Amino acid sequence: MHSHIVHAHPDPASYNGALTRAAERTLRDRGGTVTVSDLYGAGFDPVESGQHYPRRAEPDHFAPLAEQRHAWKTGTVPDDVTTQITLLEAADLVILQFPLWWHGPPAILKGWMDRVFVSGGLYTSGMRYDTGYFTGRRALVSVTTGAPRAAFGPGSRGGDFETMLWPVQYSLHYMGFSVLPPFVSYGVQGHGYSYEGRNSLEERLRGNLAAWASHLAGLHGIEPLRFPGWADWNEEGSALPR
Amino acid sequence: MHSHIVHAHPDPASYNGALTRAAERTLRDRGGTVTVSDLYGAGFDPVESGQHYPRRAEPDHFAPLAEQRHAWKTGTVPDDVTTQITLLEAADLVILQFPLWWHGPPAILKGWMDRVFVSGGLYTSGMRYDTGYFTGRRALVSVTTGAPRAAFGPGSRGGDFETMLWPVQYSLHYMGFSVLPPFVSYGVQGHGYSYEGRNSLEERLRGNLAAWASHLAGLHGIEPLRFPGWADWNEEGSALPR
Repeated sequence: MHSHIVHAHPDPASYNGALTRAAERTLRDRGGTVTVSDLYGAGFDPVESGQHYPRRAEPDHFAPLAEQRHAWKTGTVPDDVTTQITLLEAADLVILQFPLWWHGPPAILKGWMDRVFVSGGLYTSGMRYDTGYFTGRRALVSVTTGAPRAAFGPGSRGGDFETMLWPVQYSLHYMGFSVLPPFVSYGVQGHGYSYEGRNSLEERLRGNLAAWASHLAGLHGIEPLRFPGWADWNEEGSALPR
Repeated sequence: MHSHIVHAHPDPASYNGALTRAAERTLRDRGGTVTVSDLYGAGFDPVESGQHYPRRAEPDHFAPLAEQRHAWKTGTVPDDVTTQITLLEAADLVILQFPLWWHGPPAILKGWMDRVFVSGGLYTSGMRYDTGYFTGRRALVSVTTGAPRAAFGPGSRGGDFETMLWPVQYSLHYMGFSVLPPFVSYGVQGHGYSYEGRNSLEERLRGNLAAWASHLAGLHGIEPLRFPGWADWNEEGSALPR
């Protein structure tokens, strides 16, 4: 099994960094291969804009989806995007590793979706959802948050992860991935990067790394999340009565 | 009334551009004042990173929230962030204008939240939600999507806007804003920028601009969305039984 981790934290020494390294170790120890896209490390530009398309279909206006389709057709997809696509195409399992910032992924990862999920290339009107490009592959969100577990759930202060992660996870579903339930690391406080110390926070975070490793070791037994697909909609896209 | 529009589309001639100009015109015609942050036009950097903090509390590690607090305390908040904060502070109404990309805002707007909603400055553990910095101000999301109205709703192909916009709208609530229901422009197709032509798409989009203008003219009568607040949670942040 080949796994690819898309890693989106500005500090390699962060707890997110530790989670990514633990995943690499665990997946390799089990005989798999692993690649990592460190978006900050690579200086990935998350801003979809005309600057990425020097040979535009329409030089005077920038319609993002039209230019993505044109670039795919003419072989002018930006190099950094091609690199990311190649890494995704090789993977049986894709892990998105990020800290929860404002109830979602950091901008660098949001923009990775904006730019890498290329219209006309990785999806078309018929190649989406359960007929998506990555059908048969699995994806998994691993997210950290500073707040404790008790602060999450419907109506709770931090919000409900099912709602909060819906935009990211439904986007993965759109691309055809089978999306596994997310792994959430709670209570990752500012100095999470010093997690190798001795106090209770550090012990808890060390325990959570072990939980992450055994979660990854047991992935084969985990059912993907259920999202609606083509059989659930009429031609206009409205949900059919069940 | 003073309004501030945060505008996040790469093409000024886009339909998003038309919506922002219609809002400016309408709000001014009604005697108000309006400012606009054109994030693409300003080249706003949405990537929160150590590079924005040359005088770090911890030069060897980058813990974003700790550095935001340190910058606030030491008066070293990045200039582009200070500019955005000043514009927000002056506004009675804040409008976020953006196209729906991958079930959420473009990266440039996501990162505007990541960087501008400064920890220790615009929020603290006690100054959040209904005790937030912007309490008494209103905010409103105006979003465009290429898909038709029929494709949205619970279980429908495009997803449900209540879920989809929850991360953005709850973040505005976190900052203390009263969040008005979103204005959604459906069926904005690639060539929306040529909306001044004569075909049915263009007519529909022109009609939608008029609907947006009258929506803005009637805002005073609109009830904000309801989100939970401090009275709904125990000390740990769990939802209290109702």
